Amino acid sequence: MERYDIGIIGTGPAGLSAAINGKIRNKNIIVFGHEDLSAKVTRAEKINNYLGFINVSGNELKDSFQEHIRSMNIEIVPERINNVYAMGDYFALMVNDVIYEVKTVILATGIEYTRPFPGEEEYIGRGVGYCATCDAPLYKGKTVAIIGYNKEAEEEANYVSELASKLYYIPMYSGDLKLVPSIEVIKDKPMKIEGEDRVTHLVLKNQKLSVDGIFVLRDSISPGQLVPGLRIEDNHIAVDRLMSTSIPGCFAAGDCVGKPYQYIKAAGEGLIAAISASAYLDKLKREKL
Amino acid sequence: MERYDIGIIGTGPAGLSAAINGKIRNKNIIVFGHEDLSAKVTRAEKINNYLGFINVSGNELKDSFQEHIRSMNIEIVPERINNVYAMGDYFALMVNDVIYEVKTVILATGIEYTRPFPGEEEYIGRGVGYCATCDAPLYKGKTVAIIGYNKEAEEEANYVSELASKLYYIPMYSGDLKLVPSIEVIKDKPMKIEGEDRVTHLVLKNQKLSVDGIFVLRDSISPGQLVPGLRIEDNHIAVDRLMSTSIPGCFAAGDCVGKPYQYIKAAGEGLIAAISASAYLDKLKREKL
Repeated sequence: MERYDIGIIGTGPAGLSAAINGKIRNKNIIVFGHEDLSAKVTRAEKINNYLGFINVSGNELKDSFQEHIRSMNIEIVPERINNVYAMGDYFALMVNDVIYEVKTVILATGIEYTRPFPGEEEYIGRGVGYCATCDAPLYKGKTVAIIGYNKEAEEEANYVSELASKLYYIPMYSGDLKLVPSIEVIKDKPMKIEGEDRVTHLVLKNQKLSVDGIFVLRDSISPGQLVPGLRIEDNHIAVDRLMSTSIPGCFAAGDCVGKPYQYIKAAGEGLIAAISASAYLDKLKREKL
Repeated sequence: MERYDIGIIGTGPAGLSAAINGKIRNKNIIVFGHEDLSAKVTRAEKINNYLGFINVSGNELKDSFQEHIRSMNIEIVPERINNVYAMGDYFALMVNDVIYEVKTVILATGIEYTRPFPGEEEYIGRGVGYCATCDAPLYKGKTVAIIGYNKEAEEEANYVSELASKLYYIPMYSGDLKLVPSIEVIKDKPMKIEGEDRVTHLVLKNQKLSVDGIFVLRDSISPGQLVPGLRIEDNHIAVDRLMSTSIPGCFAAGDCVGKPYQYIKAAGEGLIAAISASAYLDKLKREKL
């Protein structure tokens, strides 16, 4: 299996800036994210504080970013990493049942603005999960609800429906759904998760579903769930000024490391993270000699 | 006297990014630097790691910066701050005998690549100085050498020549000099500064001058000399992740706070410094209510 020098998770300004700087330093990089880069950038109406770009729209800035990475032949792998495991001399990045191996990792996952539902954190691992395809086998013949925040969640739902006896899908977005007919779509607002030892109910605004498991499939997973053992401070990944996290070889940049949530701050940090990861790789190389 | 909200020292990417972000937050800012912004940016041949700008020349990037600040009506005061004094609830920024008052200051002075001459640091305050016009009265009737790194130093030399009995001017740049006739121009390479209790000689490659004082007028003054009491670590201004220095109300960004010396890193930090300065100002305001 190919082992990459740097695995970059996220395609907002932090991840992209890390990517171009890793590439410039001749590192073998792999970038995971969205082909349309960052919904947060794209949706921005006007941006006037990214030095050098005067009053651009989010879409225009995104186009400049896209052109930049294309000009450097950087491709984006449109997959969502579910877990990052530190394996000693490398990291295993898990996409459902596929594993990517990288020597260093740069977390540029942004920040999830949506708060957890009441009860959600209490029942993590006891009926609440974030990777439906990973945990589906646990719910064979059972009743499951999936709260989906994007179209990718639909694929996971279709997969889970093959195992679960009953599957509810609660879309948190508008638009057409591509779901198998056996899935019951519920257009209602999730309010809280209830249970005893384990999850028993998903309470929605207008109804209450009796379930054995609930998957919450948001745009991004919180860094603490993504990378077990990572030190978190005030809901952000703890980093030093070189963007090193508490795990050697693991760096972070952008909104996920703290405020201000601003594009050029993220891009600056992405550059630092790429330079730090490169220095770390060079040190590893020297130590092996 | 008008007291500004934020005084920004430096017009590289860090200072300019701080300026646009301070202005966006409706702060009354004043920016000190060069009208042509940053020699380091202008001289760069190709820049390919400032996310969004593909393979631009330093001059093109500078033009984009210039257009950006012009579009926001940000003007640059082309003066060199010699000293920054923390006065309690404000800072005094000294330009020779002129004083500007600011509530907060952002240091974005870059990094001086030229090393001090042997003997220079040893004799600071004992014959070696950095502000000729400030200290000229001390050298009335004496022999002085000025090592000038830019054309602005010529004005200082002309002023000092009125007081000193003998003035040598050693230009560290090429081009025509506008100096009064009594000044002796020496085109030679300074090697070291010698003295006993105080400076006695400036040793050049091909000669040795007997002097009472030496002024070294570089493009920038080291931050420790500029802001007395500022905490310096490894030759850089010590800052936390919010770009706060050891002095309350004093922030810093860009090359002067540490490596990597890269434009977008500096711009990102400039933004953080402006937001931190704004938050500090808002806190001051609330405390006064």
